[in-house]
Amino acid sequence: MVEKQTRGATRGPGRPREERVTRAVLDAVVALVAEQGMHALTMDAVAVRAEVSKPAIYRRWPTKQDLIIAAAESRIGPLSIPDLGDFRAELRAVLTARLEVYRTPGMARLISGVFGAAAEAGSGRDAYQAYINRGMGETGRILERGIVRGDVRPDTDIRTTATMVAAPLVFRLVAEQEMPDSHLVDSVVELVARAVGVQR
Amino acid sequence: MVEKQTRGATRGPGRPREERVTRAVLDAVVALVAEQGMHALTMDAVAVRAEVSKPAIYRRWPTKQDLIIAAAESRIGPLSIPDLGDFRAELRAVLTARLEVYRTPGMARLISGVFGAAAEAGSGRDAYQAYINRGMGETGRILERGIVRGDVRPDTDIRTTATMVAAPLVFRLVAEQEMPDSHLVDSVVELVARAVGVQR
Repeated sequence: MVEKQTRGATRGPGRPREERVTRAVLDAVVALVAEQGMHALTMDAVAVRAEVSKPAIYRRWPTKQDLIIAAAESRIGPLSIPDLGDFRAELRAVLTARLEVYRTPGMARLISGVFGAAAEAGSGRDAYQAYINRGMGETGRILERGIVRGDVRPDTDIRTTATMVAAPLVFRLVAEQEMPDSHLVDSVVELVARAVGVQR
Repeated sequence: MVEKQTRGATRGPGRPREERVTRAVLDAVVALVAEQGMHALTMDAVAVRAEVSKPAIYRRWPTKQDLIIAAAESRIGPLSIPDLGDFRAELRAVLTARLEVYRTPGMARLISGVFGAAAEAGSGRDAYQAYINRGMGETGRILERGIVRGDVRPDTDIRTTATMVAAPLVFRLVAEQEMPDSHLVDSVVELVARAVGVQR
């Protein structure tokens, strides 16, 4: 139902080795963070774990910040939710897809690390901004489609609502330090639907 | 209107030196993070900046994680919002008080650092949990008071709603990497009020 495009896939075919290195490195980042924590994430450790050379890593990701953002993006990536005829069902599809990712080991650490990297870095900033915009973008499109369809109020503040859809699962995970679950997804969808849905 | 109790204040009078050291250390942490970033936060740098001995720091905060959490708590601390006769006004008071704190320099870094510390640490966990619970607790009390008063729906999911109130400002700051503003506060209050308010 939900189509996920990884960053590697957008590079197209014909570069299988390139893709294999990218995947090996990003998998190594996620594994190291999950198993040992962010402090274990050194370029040396990633190179050993991924069985690639350090220059091969630096060529793609000049800083550790870039690497953390790319690793998170490889997991959380953009989403494309088809028209399901009901914005509630579409928001639930977005949040259910996110939930699945957030529940994989190490994601609280990785996402905290991404926020930290973005807060510190000047360098990784553009990549980070693109990553965040893609994440929020699909919710924005769902709301706009709902306005056209007529099940979302036309005066809806798209930006704030997208933030209110995206924020609770991440907050539950990294701020409340608890695993978000399907109950939270259902409650968020219900509350958002009451706030911006056209009363039927 | 909004009463803020700092952690130091709860220790009561009679320990002015103790309090002065606490304040100097936590101020030094916030200043270092704001000016130079989380990587500059070493026990040595804090000791120099605060003009206290390292043992004086370690005695109070055994790990850097504890120190980061305490510094954030000294700024974000608990809130006590009086009964304003309207849960919307009370939620706005909570979020406006938070907004003021989030807009001080270095808060994006400090809050990202807190999440990172909480994700990594076993040690700082209890302090962190207490800090988060206090933060969410006031919103919970406001919603419960609203249910009794009759302006909040009695079937309101307090926990999820508290998350949905707390999450957007923090998410705007640390995930979207943008400064939250009073427009966001107004929009969040309006959306939450539509979701859980009794229709009048």
